[in-house]
Amino acid sequence: MDKKSVSLAVDDLLHQNLLRPVGFRDSRAGRRQELLAVNGSHSNYIGIDLGATHIIGVRTDLNCMVLDRVFFEVRPGLAVELILEQMKSILRTLRGSTAGTGELSSIGVSIPGFVNPKECVSLKAFNIPGWHEIQIGSILGTEIHKPVYVEDCSRAMGLAERWLGKGGDVENFFVLDLGYGIGMALFFNGELYTGSGYKAGEIGHTLVEKDGSECTCGKKGCLEVYASGRGIARLAAEGVLQARSKILEELIHGDIKSLSAQDVALAASMNDKYSRRILETAGSHIGAALSHVVNILNPEKIIIGGSLTGAGKHLIDAVGEALEEHTMKEISADFKLELSDLGVEASARGGALIAMEHVFA
Amino acid sequence: MDKKSVSLAVDDLLHQNLLRPVGFRDSRAGRRQELLAVNGSHSNYIGIDLGATHIIGVRTDLNCMVLDRVFFEVRPGLAVELILEQMKSILRTLRGSTAGTGELSSIGVSIPGFVNPKECVSLKAFNIPGWHEIQIGSILGTEIHKPVYVEDCSRAMGLAERWLGKGGDVENFFVLDLGYGIGMALFFNGELYTGSGYKAGEIGHTLVEKDGSECTCGKKGCLEVYASGRGIARLAAEGVLQARSKILEELIHGDIKSLSAQDVALAASMNDKYSRRILETAGSHIGAALSHVVNILNPEKIIIGGSLTGAGKHLIDAVGEALEEHTMKEISADFKLELSDLGVEASARGGALIAMEHVFA
Repeated sequence: MDKKSVSLAVDDLLHQNLLRPVGFRDSRAGRRQELLAVNGSHSNYIGIDLGATHIIGVRTDLNCMVLDRVFFEVRPGLAVELILEQMKSILRTLRGSTAGTGELSSIGVSIPGFVNPKECVSLKAFNIPGWHEIQIGSILGTEIHKPVYVEDCSRAMGLAERWLGKGGDVENFFVLDLGYGIGMALFFNGELYTGSGYKAGEIGHTLVEKDGSECTCGKKGCLEVYASGRGIARLAAEGVLQARSKILEELIHGDIKSLSAQDVALAASMNDKYSRRILETAGSHIGAALSHVVNILNPEKIIIGGSLTGAGKHLIDAVGEALEEHTMKEISADFKLELSDLGVEASARGGALIAMEHVFA
Repeated sequence: MDKKSVSLAVDDLLHQNLLRPVGFRDSRAGRRQELLAVNGSHSNYIGIDLGATHIIGVRTDLNCMVLDRVFFEVRPGLAVELILEQMKSILRTLRGSTAGTGELSSIGVSIPGFVNPKECVSLKAFNIPGWHEIQIGSILGTEIHKPVYVEDCSRAMGLAERWLGKGGDVENFFVLDLGYGIGMALFFNGELYTGSGYKAGEIGHTLVEKDGSECTCGKKGCLEVYASGRGIARLAAEGVLQARSKILEELIHGDIKSLSAQDVALAASMNDKYSRRILETAGSHIGAALSHVVNILNPEKIIIGGSLTGAGKHLIDAVGEALEEHTMKEISADFKLELSDLGVEASARGGALIAMEHVFA
C-alpha cells in the first residue's frame, strides 16, 4: 500500500471509532508522529468456554481485555439441560455487566469435541456424557438476541495464543490444550488449520500404548487414557484403592470421586512416589506424541496450555525429555517448547476473539 | 475474471505457444466452442530422482508426459563421487535425446533426506553414506548450463500425485513415500507444506517401538527400522541367518547382502510365514503411524506410493487394518486410503514438475 492509501484507510478507521490517538513520538526525520491504537471500547464481546469441569465466561473489549468474568464449576456428569442453563445464566450476567463501556456485539462459544462452526452446532463432546448434536448457536442466540459463533475449545485456545500469547511471532506452530481432555490447535503459515471436516487436532486420541486401556472414544491405548486430567485422576484413584499412596489417600479425605489431577500434582510436590510416577509417565507419553507432530510437521514452536500446565515440573520435564529423545536432532535444533502464560481464561478469551473475527470478516 | 480478460489472457497464451487448439464442441446455446489444451511440445524438462538403490532420469514435455528415460541401479554404499558421475551421465543422455521436440528448459532433482531448495543444496541423505552438504545445483548446473532445482524426493512424489495422480481432486491430503526409506509429502489447502525449515515429512523417523533397534538417524525404534525397504531387508537377513526361512534362503542363493524387500514380498507370496510376519508387522506399524497423522490432521486422503506399494497385500492390508483400528471413527468416516498408480517414475516426474514450477513462477 502506498502512503496515501494507508492515510485514507486510517482516516476511515478513526472515523468509525475503531482506532484512537494515544499520543505522539518524534520520528528520525524530526517530525512528530501521531500514535494510534485499536480503540478497545469500540465494542464488547462475550466468550464462553465450556469445559468438562468448568464453565468460564468473559466480557471483553475490542482488544480482548477482560472487563468482567464469571466462573462456574461443573460436576462431571451433570445433565446437558443443566449445563445449558448455566451457560444461559452466564450470558445474562455478562450482558447486564456494567463493567463494559462499549456495546455488546457478539458471542463466541468454546466447546470440547467435534463442532461444526458453519452450522453453529456442537456435534459431540466425549468428556460430557449425553452431549450430542447441540444446536448451541440457536439455543444461546434465542436467549441473548445477538449472533453466536462456536469453535472447538483447543482452537479457541490457539487463537488466544496467536493474538494475545506466545504464538504472535511464529507462522507454523501448535498449541497443546492439556486439560481434562487433550486437544491441539494447528497453525500453518499463520492460519488456523481445521482439517477437511473441522476435525483436526485429535492428538488426545492417538495411540500411545498398544492394547492399552479403553478410552472414552471407543479405541484403546489413547494418549488421553494416560495423560489427560481425566486419565491421571483415574490412575490415581486406582492407586488409592490399591493402597499405593498414603498421601493421596489423606488428601482426598475419603472422597475418591473428587480426586483430580490437581490432587496428584499436589501429592507429587509432597514427594509422593506413586503420584510422581503417574505424572512422569503422562509427560513421557505426551512428549512422544508431540515428537510425531514435530518430526512430521517441522513447526517453530509448540505452546502447552490448559489446566495441566500447573501440574508441576514432574510432568512438564518428562514432556521435554521424551520430546528431545524422539525428535530428529536436525529438526529439534530450531524448535521451541513453551508454556502458556494466559491462564484459565485462554479459551474463553479465544471465544471472544472468534466472535470478533466473524464481525470483522 | 470477466469474459474479456479471459479472452485476452488466452490470446496471450496462444501467442506464446503455451496453448494449442485441439478441436471444437457444440455448446448448449448452439454455438461451436473451440477447445484448447496445454501445448506439451512448448518446452522440455528433465527430472532426476536419486534413490538409495536407483537413479531415474526422465525427459518430459510441458504436460509432464515422459519422452525419454534412463534407469540406473545403484549399489547401496556406492561412493558419492560415483553417484554424481552417474547423475551427470543421465543428464548428458537426456540432453542429447532426440525424442523431445521442444527445447530443454530446466532440470529438477529429487533427493532423499534434508534439502535446502532455496540454495539448491542436498544437506543430508541418511540412506546414502557420506552424502552431506552436496551443492547439487551448481554441480549439475555446470554440467548442463541450464537452471537446476532441487527438492526432497517425497515432496517430488507428492507433486506428481497432485498434478498427474490421485491428489488432483483433494485439498488436504498426504502422500506416503514407502521405499528404501519412508517420507511424506503434506498438502494443506492444496499447497505443498514444507515446514518451518524445509524439514517436514519425517514420518519415517517417528517412534513406533519404545527402546527398539537403532535407526540410521541415531534414534531408536523409528518406523523406518521396521517398515522401510531397508528395515524389511535387515529383518529378513536376520531371519535367514537364524535359519527361520527356507524359502528366503533359496531365493537369495547365498548372497545375503543382495536380500531386498522385493525378495521378502516374493517369499510371502510363496507362503513363507516368516516373510509374511515381517510384512504384516511393517504394515501394522505404518498404519499406526498414519493414524496419528489422520487423527491430528483430518485429511481427505492418503496416497501410498513408492517401491514398497508392490510388496503385496500382506503389507497393504495390515496398513489398512491398523489405520482403521487406531483412527477415531468420526474422522475415518470421510477418509480414503489409496494406492498410487504412477509407478517408479513418480519422483522423477515430480522433479520435472518442480523444474516447470520454477520456470512459470
